[in-house]
Amino acid sequence: MNGSEKKTALTLLSGGLDSATVLYIARERGFRLYALSFEYGQRHAYEISRARLQAKNAGVEEHFIMRLDPTLFRGSALTEEKIPVPRDRTIDSEIPVTYVPARNMLFLAHAFALCESYEIEDVFIGVNALDYSGYPDCRPEFIAALEKAAALGMKSGVEGHPVKIHAPLQTLSKTRIIQEGLRLGVDYGATSSCYDPGPDGTPCGHCDSCVLRENGFREAGVLDPLTSAKITNES
Amino acid sequence: MNGSEKKTALTLLSGGLDSATVLYIARERGFRLYALSFEYGQRHAYEISRARLQAKNAGVEEHFIMRLDPTLFRGSALTEEKIPVPRDRTIDSEIPVTYVPARNMLFLAHAFALCESYEIEDVFIGVNALDYSGYPDCRPEFIAALEKAAALGMKSGVEGHPVKIHAPLQTLSKTRIIQEGLRLGVDYGATSSCYDPGPDGTPCGHCDSCVLRENGFREAGVLDPLTSAKITNES
Repeated sequence: MNGSEKKTALTLLSGGLDSATVLYIARERGFRLYALSFEYGQRHAYEISRARLQAKNAGVEEHFIMRLDPTLFRGSALTEEKIPVPRDRTIDSEIPVTYVPARNMLFLAHAFALCESYEIEDVFIGVNALDYSGYPDCRPEFIAALEKAAALGMKSGVEGHPVKIHAPLQTLSKTRIIQEGLRLGVDYGATSSCYDPGPDGTPCGHCDSCVLRENGFREAGVLDPLTSAKITNES
Repeated sequence: MNGSEKKTALTLLSGGLDSATVLYIARERGFRLYALSFEYGQRHAYEISRARLQAKNAGVEEHFIMRLDPTLFRGSALTEEKIPVPRDRTIDSEIPVTYVPARNMLFLAHAFALCESYEIEDVFIGVNALDYSGYPDCRPEFIAALEKAAALGMKSGVEGHPVKIHAPLQTLSKTRIIQEGLRLGVDYGATSSCYDPGPDGTPCGHCDSCVLRENGFREAGVLDPLTSAKITNES
């Protein structure tokens, strides 16, 4: 890579609030932007349209959208229509039924392969272990262990330039994430957080993800453009 | 899972000599057999037909064949037609051009997801760090680090029954692997090791994988049914 050129960051971009914010953080840190999204049979596949929009708005140069075999994911409310998404759940330390098996490891393994194929050393991911649903693959100890495995198992690691996983939201509250994103110019009206949206993307307002988002905007003292626009349209 | 039932092992099955042997080792250890193979744009996709045959012969109950996006793998002689597979190379400690980015992490991440989806706790993989091509993702330190990451990031790990990666060939020479497989009844005539086979699967005889296989059979003092059958046919 030419030393005078910007380095490239590959951001895992779901189309949700967190990953959109991370994309803008990577941009602020001076990286050229690549992004990676997945179709994996998620019931909220609407989010992919938001990922495309975020990628376009932020100036992403390459946006990979990859498909994972839906056979991989059984027993999750996010991938099986017959398992309902919990509504107005008390979010505790239990792993909820919206957990998707080995999802972040799969996402990151794909990112690592792309890193070696495109000479990228920096991966950005929007994991957060504060205002989150209790997924173990969002915890810092998992991210650190996987980064270590990648350094040991990949050519780039052996050759002394291991892939680094950046998780800049890791210890931020949802409110802080939103404040940071607003400072960076993220259009949160063009994101989708809901696990069970309507066909036009309308959030349910009751799943973990909607509840965490709503609380975050309320505590930040700002309106969520996604839901407030809707109110405006309806009034 | 019913305690009186056999446990299930998921074996990563390429259709090569090593993974076929591992499948029979899992069977001997008393597991029910599931298997997982990948199409990833490999030039030796012929191996998948051998994986199917091995799965059938060994009594595999579920054989998953998944496709990985070929965009993931650039710069490898195994996935890019324009990069030639080295012939009669001196196999040293360098990582060769047949290295495929993050391949074993991708394979194992898929296996982990299936484990949680099908209540499996045991994954078998034919990695070997003795008579091998020098791929870092075949080394025991990588396998151990990834197993640890899985324990931290997966529901099964948090709940106290982490997935175990079995790598029974890890420290065996190719000769010992072949001896073990012959004892277990593996039909090595129905495997394919070559990186660059002919359309009918005929091995090139010159790639790392052919060379390691040939040396292994020679030192074991037995004929390779794959190449000796060919000689018989030709005579």
